[in-house]
Amino acid sequence: VRIAIDAMGGDHAPAVNVDAAVAAHREFGISSLLVGRERELAPMLAEAGYRGSEIEIVDAAEVITMDDPATAAIRKKRNSSIRVAANCVRDGRAEGLVSAGHTGAGMVCAKMVIGAIEGVDRPALATVLPNLTGHCLLLDVGANPDAKTAQFKEFAVMGSIYAELAFGKKRPSIGLMSIGEEDSKGTDETKEAFKILEATGLNFIGNVEGRDVFNGTVDVIVTDGFTGNVILKVSEALAEMVENLLREEIKRTLQASVGFLLSRSAFRRF
Amino acid sequence: VRIAIDAMGGDHAPAVNVDAAVAAHREFGISSLLVGRERELAPMLAEAGYRGSEIEIVDAAEVITMDDPATAAIRKKRNSSIRVAANCVRDGRAEGLVSAGHTGAGMVCAKMVIGAIEGVDRPALATVLPNLTGHCLLLDVGANPDAKTAQFKEFAVMGSIYAELAFGKKRPSIGLMSIGEEDSKGTDETKEAFKILEATGLNFIGNVEGRDVFNGTVDVIVTDGFTGNVILKVSEALAEMVENLLREEIKRTLQASVGFLLSRSAFRRF
Repeated sequence: VRIAIDAMGGDHAPAVNVDAAVAAHREFGISSLLVGRERELAPMLAEAGYRGSEIEIVDAAEVITMDDPATAAIRKKRNSSIRVAANCVRDGRAEGLVSAGHTGAGMVCAKMVIGAIEGVDRPALATVLPNLTGHCLLLDVGANPDAKTAQFKEFAVMGSIYAELAFGKKRPSIGLMSIGEEDSKGTDETKEAFKILEATGLNFIGNVEGRDVFNGTVDVIVTDGFTGNVILKVSEALAEMVENLLREEIKRTLQASVGFLLSRSAFRRF
Repeated sequence: VRIAIDAMGGDHAPAVNVDAAVAAHREFGISSLLVGRERELAPMLAEAGYRGSEIEIVDAAEVITMDDPATAAIRKKRNSSIRVAANCVRDGRAEGLVSAGHTGAGMVCAKMVIGAIEGVDRPALATVLPNLTGHCLLLDVGANPDAKTAQFKEFAVMGSIYAELAFGKKRPSIGLMSIGEEDSKGTDETKEAFKILEATGLNFIGNVEGRDVFNGTVDVIVTDGFTGNVILKVSEALAEMVENLLREEIKRTLQASVGFLLSRSAFRRF
């Protein structure tokens, strides 16, 4: 496969994107198009020690910044790295697109330049969360805050295919985020979505709850982009807080055991 | 104040509820009515060493179990401890009601027996979450999954008063759970709720995000019962997972330093 990489997108771009392209080629044999400012990228690629022809630079003069509106890549910066990368996929020069840049601009390019697969109304944002037994794919996490119930079916189908390919699971289990296991629990929208998902023929296991994101009971969780985004941000902040609190505890525990060690040494002296 | 306690509600009931009533009286001078099966409660209260008249037992023969529907206290078990405790508040024998039992039955009694304060459409479920600087009150967390935007105003007013009294904060800050700080972010419902909250005269600081539940930026977060319930359950599960993972790490670290201690001891022998 050949991947178009938005080389100018994300923190520490473009350096980390160039290094990643070289590493992906070395470790997995992946070809790529590094899309961005050629005169910045060429010396970096040379410096990274890559000399072959399977990583190509595609020049794109403009960059979408975090202050740009999501539609900038369509309306104003048509020469931006994300837009030119999307053009490469549209024109068959690459099979996929990777960007760590402006999420909204990426979504707009996916929808307007590359276009959706037949049967899919709008793209979804998905995230893979670690849990006790492996991973859980959560979608949508922000592209569709006002998702209509019909979209839940699309999320489920896309999520099922993703989990099959990325996690290597046959018939991945699909759960609907709700606030109780019974199909009578939830909002009017989730109750309607429950019926739609039941009829898909996918491996739909019914409603799941917040705790199921992390306990390994389900491979794919389907929700609207508002709830998914809140779950993602709550999780990030809480994991950080608990980790910091417990690292402090580890430090204190270690200091205490070093203190114990020192007192034993001191004791031995007398 | 005198509090009606649903003595039969919750895990390890009634024993822990009796002990709690005695402790609350000893430490804070709080009077209470222990509502439940008198022949179970009387010996426990005696055993707990309480001999005064400020903790009274009010007999109630029935108990709502977790398998009962939320409406059981109204329709079938009118002699249940939660229902009789609610009667005590309605009749002026107690100023407040505490129950660790069936949440739905508690909500129904609050609404149907005690009744809502004028101006409040439906009761809300609120939870106090610990964060980096103290506490954050989150409501609603499940009583109103399909909350109408007008209810957000009620949640904000009730939450503000709670934070003022319970946290001792003057003009507590109120945030609206959304997926971006700008007032243009969120669902159609949250955008409407934003305008309603802006007009309340409360200390409304605008939209907050998932991360703000735990970073100490806001005293009260207002959301619908679906989103709030998901936040609560995600948080519980994630905190448990991170804690378990890091406790394992602490254990390994400790074992490593004990190993180091032993090797030093062994070394000293020779």
